[in-house]
Amino acid sequence: MASSSEIGLAAGINILTAFAFLVAFAILRIQPLNDRVYFPKWYLKGLRNDPLQSGAFVQKFVNLDFRSYLRFLNWMPAALHMPEPELIDHAGLDSVVYLRIYLTGLKIFVPIACLAFTVMVPVNWTNRTLEQSNLTFSEIDKLSISNIPTGSNRFWTHLIMAYTFTFWTCYVLKREYEIIAAMRLHFIASEHRRPDQFTVLVRNVPPDPDETVNELVEHFFLVNHPDHYLSHQVVYDANLLSNLVNERKTKQNWLDYYQLKYNRNNQSKRPSMKTGYLGLCGKRVDAIDYYQSEIDKLSKEICKEREKITKSSKYVMPAAFVSFKTRWGAAVCAQTEQSRNPTIWLTEWAPEPRDVYWDNLAIPFVSLTIRRLIIAVAFFFLTFFFMIPIAFVQSLANIDGIVKAAPFMKGLLEVKFVTSVIQGVLPGIALKIFLIILPSILMMMSKFEGFTSISTLERRSATRYYIFQFINVFLGSIITGTAFQQLNNFIHQSANEIPVTIGASIPMKATFFITYIMVDGWAGVAGEILRIKPLIFYHLKNFFLVKTEKDREEAMNPGSLPFNTGEPQIQLYFLLGLVYAAVTPILLPFIVVFFGLAYVVYRHQIINVYHQQYESAGAFWPDVHGRIITALIVSQLLLMGLLSTKEAAQSTPLLIALPVLTIWFHRFCKGRYEPAFVRYPLQEAMMKDTLERAREPCLNVKSYLENAYVHPVFNNANRWDGTDDGVSDDEWPKEPTLVATKRSSRTTTPARSQRSESTRTLLCVTDERSCP
Amino acid sequence: MASSSEIGLAAGINILTAFAFLVAFAILRIQPLNDRVYFPKWYLKGLRNDPLQSGAFVQKFVNLDFRSYLRFLNWMPAALHMPEPELIDHAGLDSVVYLRIYLTGLKIFVPIACLAFTVMVPVNWTNRTLEQSNLTFSEIDKLSISNIPTGSNRFWTHLIMAYTFTFWTCYVLKREYEIIAAMRLHFIASEHRRPDQFTVLVRNVPPDPDETVNELVEHFFLVNHPDHYLSHQVVYDANLLSNLVNERKTKQNWLDYYQLKYNRNNQSKRPSMKTGYLGLCGKRVDAIDYYQSEIDKLSKEICKEREKITKSSKYVMPAAFVSFKTRWGAAVCAQTEQSRNPTIWLTEWAPEPRDVYWDNLAIPFVSLTIRRLIIAVAFFFLTFFFMIPIAFVQSLANIDGIVKAAPFMKGLLEVKFVTSVIQGVLPGIALKIFLIILPSILMMMSKFEGFTSISTLERRSATRYYIFQFINVFLGSIITGTAFQQLNNFIHQSANEIPVTIGASIPMKATFFITYIMVDGWAGVAGEILRIKPLIFYHLKNFFLVKTEKDREEAMNPGSLPFNTGEPQIQLYFLLGLVYAAVTPILLPFIVVFFGLAYVVYRHQIINVYHQQYESAGAFWPDVHGRIITALIVSQLLLMGLLSTKEAAQSTPLLIALPVLTIWFHRFCKGRYEPAFVRYPLQEAMMKDTLERAREPCLNVKSYLENAYVHPVFNNANRWDGTDDGVSDDEWPKEPTLVATKRSSRTTTPARSQRSESTRTLLCVTDERSCP
Repeated sequence: MASSSEIGLAAGINILTAFAFLVAFAILRIQPLNDRVYFPKWYLKGLRNDPLQSGAFVQKFVNLDFRSYLRFLNWMPAALHMPEPELIDHAGLDSVVYLRIYLTGLKIFVPIACLAFTVMVPVNWTNRTLEQSNLTFSEIDKLSISNIPTGSNRFWTHLIMAYTFTFWTCYVLKREYEIIAAMRLHFIASEHRRPDQFTVLVRNVPPDPDETVNELVEHFFLVNHPDHYLSHQVVYDANLLSNLVNERKTKQNWLDYYQLKYNRNNQSKRPSMKTGYLGLCGKRVDAIDYYQSEIDKLSKEICKEREKITKSSKYVMPAAFVSFKTRWGAAVCAQTEQSRNPTIWLTEWAPEPRDVYWDNLAIPFVSLTIRRLIIAVAFFFLTFFFMIPIAFVQSLANIDGIVKAAPFMKGLLEVKFVTSVIQGVLPGIALKIFLIILPSILMMMSKFEGFTSISTLERRSATRYYIFQFINVFLGSIITGTAFQQLNNFIHQSANEIPVTIGASIPMKATFFITYIMVDGWAGVAGEILRIKPLIFYHLKNFFLVKTEKDREEAMNPGSLPFNTGEPQIQLYFLLGLVYAAVTPILLPFIVVFFGLAYVVYRHQIINVYHQQYESAGAFWPDVHGRIITALIVSQLLLMGLLSTKEAAQSTPLLIALPVLTIWFHRFCKGRYEPAFVRYPLQEAMMKDTLERAREPCLNVKSYLENAYVHPVFNNANRWDGTDDGVSDDEWPKEPTLVATKRSSRTTTPARSQRSESTRTLLCVTDERSCP
Repeated sequence: MASSSEIGLAAGINILTAFAFLVAFAILRIQPLNDRVYFPKWYLKGLRNDPLQSGAFVQKFVNLDFRSYLRFLNWMPAALHMPEPELIDHAGLDSVVYLRIYLTGLKIFVPIACLAFTVMVPVNWTNRTLEQSNLTFSEIDKLSISNIPTGSNRFWTHLIMAYTFTFWTCYVLKREYEIIAAMRLHFIASEHRRPDQFTVLVRNVPPDPDETVNELVEHFFLVNHPDHYLSHQVVYDANLLSNLVNERKTKQNWLDYYQLKYNRNNQSKRPSMKTGYLGLCGKRVDAIDYYQSEIDKLSKEICKEREKITKSSKYVMPAAFVSFKTRWGAAVCAQTEQSRNPTIWLTEWAPEPRDVYWDNLAIPFVSLTIRRLIIAVAFFFLTFFFMIPIAFVQSLANIDGIVKAAPFMKGLLEVKFVTSVIQGVLPGIALKIFLIILPSILMMMSKFEGFTSISTLERRSATRYYIFQFINVFLGSIITGTAFQQLNNFIHQSANEIPVTIGASIPMKATFFITYIMVDGWAGVAGEILRIKPLIFYHLKNFFLVKTEKDREEAMNPGSLPFNTGEPQIQLYFLLGLVYAAVTPILLPFIVVFFGLAYVVYRHQIINVYHQQYESAGAFWPDVHGRIITALIVSQLLLMGLLSTKEAAQSTPLLIALPVLTIWFHRFCKGRYEPAFVRYPLQEAMMKDTLERAREPCLNVKSYLENAYVHPVFNNANRWDGTDDGVSDDEWPKEPTLVATKRSSRTTTPARSQRSESTRTLLCVTDERSCP
């Protein structure tokens, strides 16, 4: 166990690091040169102009106003200044709800820390158990539960504190759930008209020999939602097209690069390149001509592919976005089952257009369940056996292996210093690389599993990342050993021994986790605000690629909130805080500082930097809530295990009640608040519809929705094309207003079909008359 | 372990018992006197006439046609004769689906038994392990897995068989689920118009200071379902009234009894009685006069209570049955969320009127979740600690206790034979009584939990009863000891030891379970057909109470399928069959005989006897399916444990795949078929609506639904009243067609409200014009 002076040293170093990051940020951000790196959000909103275009030459790049250096921390109050409703308008509800996770952390842990320091620290401190024992111990250990003698009556304090902490946490959680559910409903019901309010995603349209998907969808909804159906948009399989467009974009970048180079050299020498792998081999050609011809070729291919998609029906996927006349109609269709076969005509709320993950829209039901099984098994192996391939790589990448692969380095490797460095660094590198790419691996898993929106993909990845961290970081640090060894231990231990094993080693790991919080939490968050990677990339791009203003905008890369990696990290702190609250309360201030710092930093980033990819209206809150509850239950079980080793046996029955009550609380919250996050109440929909009808009686919803759910490759194509595109937007096939049926047998619904058609006609007539 | 000759003896005895029951049944059922006991269903359907009213005097009571005694087993083919669709018409879908559980058992176990006997029995038999060991063993053990030497390669057979059995079971389950889902949808969509197709139960109507529940419900649905809302029926708290009516019914029975007695005695002496407890103490009065006056008093009270309910608004519960113009509208309302607060305006499909459990309709959401917690904890203690009160009662009810309580029996108790009988019987009696009342306890628990329909109550009780049986009968028999001792063991054992402990003792318990199957299964089922209790009660009632034909109909008591006790019993056989299939296949024929016999017996009972209380259209199948899957997983885990003691270690990884695949299969089935049991597809609803509109354009749905959901005490009241009832059906408050709103603020939905009202007016006009 580290002594308190060692902890003090580590704290000092980390505080200095964090401070250095903040100072660096304060200096960098006021340089006009970096303006687009630290304030991209305002550029994207069109609210900020480029400082490069005004002022003296030097002032364009370096800030010479020395007074502004003195106020280098003034971004902090500024970040806290913007009120919440304005922030929702500015950055969306997702960002605000994300910030509320940190706020929840503060609300939970500040009172808990105060209480722990006033009640538990004195109780722990005024014992002499550690002093009388032969163990080495530090001041920190004297503050922890370890300092209380076995079988002491003082454990009642910890028991009562455990109850208090649980009730306080549950109270805060309930309050937050309530607030966020209300915010979400208010946000959804607020004035913005959004296409997804009227639209439902239909998947697994069954194949029909007589009709195309297009006709089938129209007829199905005309029959089954005759008064509400408005229009629909079938989904095209545009993955190939999208690849081609991306390829052309890359080539265009290279072309820009060479043209810029040519111009900078005063057009003296045309740049040349090799066509082979990475420009290392192959024929040497004129680079500008080569890329020009490549781009022309690709443009032609894109034209052809696009035409194919338009003409051929085999590019139509069995999925469609169906729009309704009213929000009420869409809410009904999204929440009900359509067909007697529950695996076809699956309806769900359409995600926002920008949130749709297009590649997964056409996966059939059976395939989905099989994919889920595969991923479940794969994730199990990833979590428990990820050390095996890494150990294998490590065993390959030793000195002998390098000598064999590259004999010319033999001389160098005989130097002892180099050898020791390599042996010290190499094993770590494989693990570090794995941990860096882990979120991408988890994301790929979620994609394979077949979710249809980016927000769901991220939520799913976050869940998996949390489980991985819980097992490999939390448990792995407490009981040293790989996850597989732990699994093996747990299988061979009895159910009541597991909490004891873990619980008993918890107090010993407090100093380790304090260091972890400072390195990963404090310095990590301070590093986030510096944006080193985007800073470097922006300047590189700016130098090599940027020709026009639009290119510069592209180069900014504001990024977005890293939900799939960030949220599990926060959850780890919740877990640590709750587990150590009743054991080693000295950990709590470190966690409070983390939550406070992260709150300010991310609030600043959300206001000035991040540009969200999508808006899910805080749909992730049930996950956040569920994981905090999990942390609470884990903390209770571990405390139970710890106390049972301290022979405070009378407390066990009292502690068993805690997890039962917590689980019940979770179920209560689930029933009470979760529906607000998965369903859309009809009352709200009806109210909104009525208001809208009263305010804008002549609103043409159909034209509003017409092109909302078109694959982005069709919308964006022209941006990369210039105008030499074969098919313009106007030529793109519009849905015909009414498709004549080809089906010969219409026995089931003859009366209805006619009725609905005449209703539609009538409606058109009314529309025309009343809204000239 | 019992030897095979002992098993043979037990089998002989049980076969003889079962046979005796069947012969007794065959003789009793053809006596005209018992006709109403064995064929009540036909009487209730009005398809059978009383044989007592025709023929010679003796022939009225005793069957003298000796040829009919020779054909005494001819009911068996007759029971199998009725085809399934006719049976659905005759007895409802629930009964048919219940029979299919037995059929599923036959489908699963007949092929498994054949395979086990051709493959596994020879493999097990041709070893000499048991002969070479010092253990005593029987022929039955030679057929089991115990006869295979440790570490033998022959265990591959059992492994492959476990896979085969799993795949076969899953195949049968999937097929059955498919068939039953189709049957259910067809049944729901079939021609019968039922009130519950149009009706939704709304619970937790929020209190409103301005409006009554009646007005509030009407306005809410007029606003939020303007095109579909038809009418509604608020729920009255009629529990007190219902108690009064029941009390009057009992008194009426006594009055009938005494009047009959008086008449039988040729009106010579008026019967008298004492008014005190059980007629043992109190003043002696004239019985007929006494009961007549009591009934008059109760009738008056009933009148008053009824008037109070009609007039006072505090008897109106915050729940209502809301009816819609179309099935589509009801399906939409039942499946969607109404309000932004998900704990108010809860909508669900209305149960059938006769299926409603009226007492629970007004429980608020928070109370519901608390009740669920209480019952969960109570059930845990009931399952694991039920032996404690029983042991306490047993300790009281010993010889000394009896002597103390009843000193006059001292002489008798000194006889040694009597003492030993009492000591042998008494401890068992407390347990037996507990087991008899256990289903009622579980039913009370479900009622307390707040479910709103009898079918749900029964399903929930069945689940609990299954868990109780699994822990206390199955595990309790394998590892002798009380459930609490087992729980204690399991907590202190590691997760991989538990299956080993149980698995290793499984082969030893085969003979016990064979006996259990014969006693509980064979003889029990044969006893069911004899209907001894209803037979005795019918004749008693017939003699003492029956005055009119209606009374005789009342006395029949046909009973109904005992789902909450019967289904868990069947599940125990599924569990035994699957667990022993790969271990001791000799058990399988006994199970096959049980399923076959039970199928025939219950088919006969369903055709001739049972009168179902409700019709849930097979809504219980997901539970049945889930429990068979549970049994399958348990069998796989136990086989894994057993094989690991046999040092067939190579098989463990292969066996782990089985539960994973089975769980995946369950999830697949859940997604694929379960929605058919909980939701109602819009396509079906629309099709049915359209058909109905085409066939009966002038149908008045409103008048059809008007009195469908009135508390039975209002509907049935006149049956027990004569006509001296204060309020006749006509005076019962009808819902006014349109209630003027009292609410002053109508800001949110002014346009809509007017519109919907005018729509309603228009609709009425149309109706009147087109349907004169």
